[in-house]
Amino acid sequence: MYSEKINNILKKLGIEIGDKIIVEKNGKEYKGILMPRTFYNPEILVLKLENGYNIGIAWDENIKIKLVSKFEKPCKKPEEKAECKNENAISILLTGGTIASKVDYRTGGVTPIMDANELIGAIPEIKDISEIKSRVIMQVFSENMNFDCYEKMIKEIEKEIKQGCEGIIIAHGTDTMHYSSAAISFAFQNLGIPLIFVGAQRSSDRGSSDAAINLISACIFAKHSNVSGVFVCMHESISDYTCAIHLGTRVRKLHTSRRDAFKTVNAKPVARVFWREKKIEWIEKDCVKEKNKERELKIYPKFERKVALIKIHPGFNPELIEFLLEKGYKGIVLEGTGLGHAPDYTFDAIKQACEQAIVCMTSQCIFGRINMKVYSTGRDLLKFGVIPCEMLPEVAFIKLSWALGNFTEQEAKEIMQKNIAGEIVERIL
Amino acid sequence: MYSEKINNILKKLGIEIGDKIIVEKNGKEYKGILMPRTFYNPEILVLKLENGYNIGIAWDENIKIKLVSKFEKPCKKPEEKAECKNENAISILLTGGTIASKVDYRTGGVTPIMDANELIGAIPEIKDISEIKSRVIMQVFSENMNFDCYEKMIKEIEKEIKQGCEGIIIAHGTDTMHYSSAAISFAFQNLGIPLIFVGAQRSSDRGSSDAAINLISACIFAKHSNVSGVFVCMHESISDYTCAIHLGTRVRKLHTSRRDAFKTVNAKPVARVFWREKKIEWIEKDCVKEKNKERELKIYPKFERKVALIKIHPGFNPELIEFLLEKGYKGIVLEGTGLGHAPDYTFDAIKQACEQAIVCMTSQCIFGRINMKVYSTGRDLLKFGVIPCEMLPEVAFIKLSWALGNFTEQEAKEIMQKNIAGEIVERIL
Repeated sequence: MYSEKINNILKKLGIEIGDKIIVEKNGKEYKGILMPRTFYNPEILVLKLENGYNIGIAWDENIKIKLVSKFEKPCKKPEEKAECKNENAISILLTGGTIASKVDYRTGGVTPIMDANELIGAIPEIKDISEIKSRVIMQVFSENMNFDCYEKMIKEIEKEIKQGCEGIIIAHGTDTMHYSSAAISFAFQNLGIPLIFVGAQRSSDRGSSDAAINLISACIFAKHSNVSGVFVCMHESISDYTCAIHLGTRVRKLHTSRRDAFKTVNAKPVARVFWREKKIEWIEKDCVKEKNKERELKIYPKFERKVALIKIHPGFNPELIEFLLEKGYKGIVLEGTGLGHAPDYTFDAIKQACEQAIVCMTSQCIFGRINMKVYSTGRDLLKFGVIPCEMLPEVAFIKLSWALGNFTEQEAKEIMQKNIAGEIVERIL
Repeated sequence: MYSEKINNILKKLGIEIGDKIIVEKNGKEYKGILMPRTFYNPEILVLKLENGYNIGIAWDENIKIKLVSKFEKPCKKPEEKAECKNENAISILLTGGTIASKVDYRTGGVTPIMDANELIGAIPEIKDISEIKSRVIMQVFSENMNFDCYEKMIKEIEKEIKQGCEGIIIAHGTDTMHYSSAAISFAFQNLGIPLIFVGAQRSSDRGSSDAAINLISACIFAKHSNVSGVFVCMHESISDYTCAIHLGTRVRKLHTSRRDAFKTVNAKPVARVFWREKKIEWIEKDCVKEKNKERELKIYPKFERKVALIKIHPGFNPELIEFLLEKGYKGIVLEGTGLGHAPDYTFDAIKQACEQAIVCMTSQCIFGRINMKVYSTGRDLLKFGVIPCEMLPEVAFIKLSWALGNFTEQEAKEIMQKNIAGEIVERIL
């Protein structure tokens, strides 16, 4: 909170946090919403300007403050219930994370959005794109997402598809959104509509929040793309002009904080959305199918829990692999070095692992093809039965868990080498 | 080998693999070195043209072949021994990997380079840059590099520095070159000369080999940069014009096969080398010290083996952490999600780990800052004593092993939060 002196002045003027005010200092006027104190110094007023950015104004005795309008609760209850049954609606499922939260300007606190009315209240532009239905299916920080969550998500998405809708948007925390998008990509085969994951890197109490633009872009893509498949929709660059649509099995969070943190790896994104113009520009359409609500959906909803993702490094202890085998692990994805390598002293453990489980090789380089035939050590690993996986380590991990969850071990081995959901890029960039 | 028919024709003409020949077909002449067969079809001649590229010429009855000159052993023994003691020489230490190998055009096999004469024979251009001394200090594929190798490498580099030289080039396999460059960066404090790691993504039997250009560029930088420090020199882009000089603690292999696989993360490279023009262009010079052979070197040569690098993922099993603690591990670097997170159900194991060992947090996003203060879950981890590490996961892992190898546990904790060798980027890109 601000200093006692400032609080008293505000009180006298009848101004509270969240009210629209004008601050006059040194002959300049600043109009905006009074925000809770964010600076260490309690004598710096924080104002959210109309362009969305926050500014700090250091207090001095000559500052003049005027009330423009009192705070209005942004989420007015509309007449009809937003929870419609309309087949032409877009369904937004909220799972938690920054994207599924709103700011209370009274308290400055971030609280979860609980239903479609609140969501439309927070981002009213989506109403102009399509009818919207929305509900909270879980409230999970994305670092806590796990296979239980994926299985629940699959059930809720299935319900939604059966009820009928134009497309489904899954609002998700960004930390592990690419693991989830891969899980859903494999689970829903022969999909007829688009399922779009959308997150936010900056929460909506920040001027630089990407929440609204990402969600608006996802709605435009869901409504107008006329394709089916699983996608991720996030800022394409650090500017606000476009969002990129990534295929759900080719994407990775590659920055901790930037709004364009998600990148398609080894290929181009599927499309970009100019959200202001409501326009979709296709970049790589080969990897997507047309929309067809009549297509007969096949769902493979299970995940094997005894699967691990292990990073190889100098001095890596092969006892970790032996430990997983003792614990009954059925699948191990190695994040090898270079083209798909591991140190020679780990070979005994890897050979043993291949006899008891499925062992897959990916690369910690992230970009580029796996090729275990170039060096003799790679060829040795192939002989043991290690399966080279031409996909992101995270995607290989989710795929192996899914393959072992729904199919026999032999089938799973074959599936790991087949392109199931666009995860294997044919022509690498 | 080629088909019997072609072999017989070549034999009659006195032509062997490695000879320079002219092939005439459809009125066009191709001049180059006859290479061993590489195509599946035994009737396609392979010629290495003078520009370095290989072409395949399908056999037909009208082809004419002429011998230009017989194969000459490329490594003639020079009059004086290249193993000079000259203080102005550049010392090239060979550790193994693609860069430290040569092609025998007689057999088509790749064999390791054994001494300075062979090296100069393979890449004679380096002789024009500086006097060269060179020796093999180990022959290790880089996926097999480990802490023993680092300690040996340190001893050999120390010997070389004491003997006196302008700079040291360490030829190294690319898989784990960035782990090694980090190890050497931490081990040699107060360095007076440049130590430059150099590798090759494509072996020298391929027209697209980057071995020669990378080594030539490293020699130019060693001789003319007038700076000290530990660097990595590799192709800057897929073209041959320039090589990038990366700081040894800010670089990562980010592609399995491209020649520009190594990238500086979160900052710009230090410099680029125009090898044809023998010119160095500085990009980010703030992070390097001037060369000064009189500077008093400090060496911290040890590495703690009981350190692990663990990747966090959905469904991660915290028993892996408990297993490491049982095995007496003293350091664990976590490759967390997003800004530095781990699932809540792992907190007990992480808390316990903080009591028995040093636990550091990095991000699997690779790019961007760690910030564990944004969300309450990150703040919990900080409370347990997890140390946020503003550096690449691979660098944090090597640094923790080094810090625990040479200092007390308390000192190591402090060191992990200090910038020791440029690994913490102040102004992130």
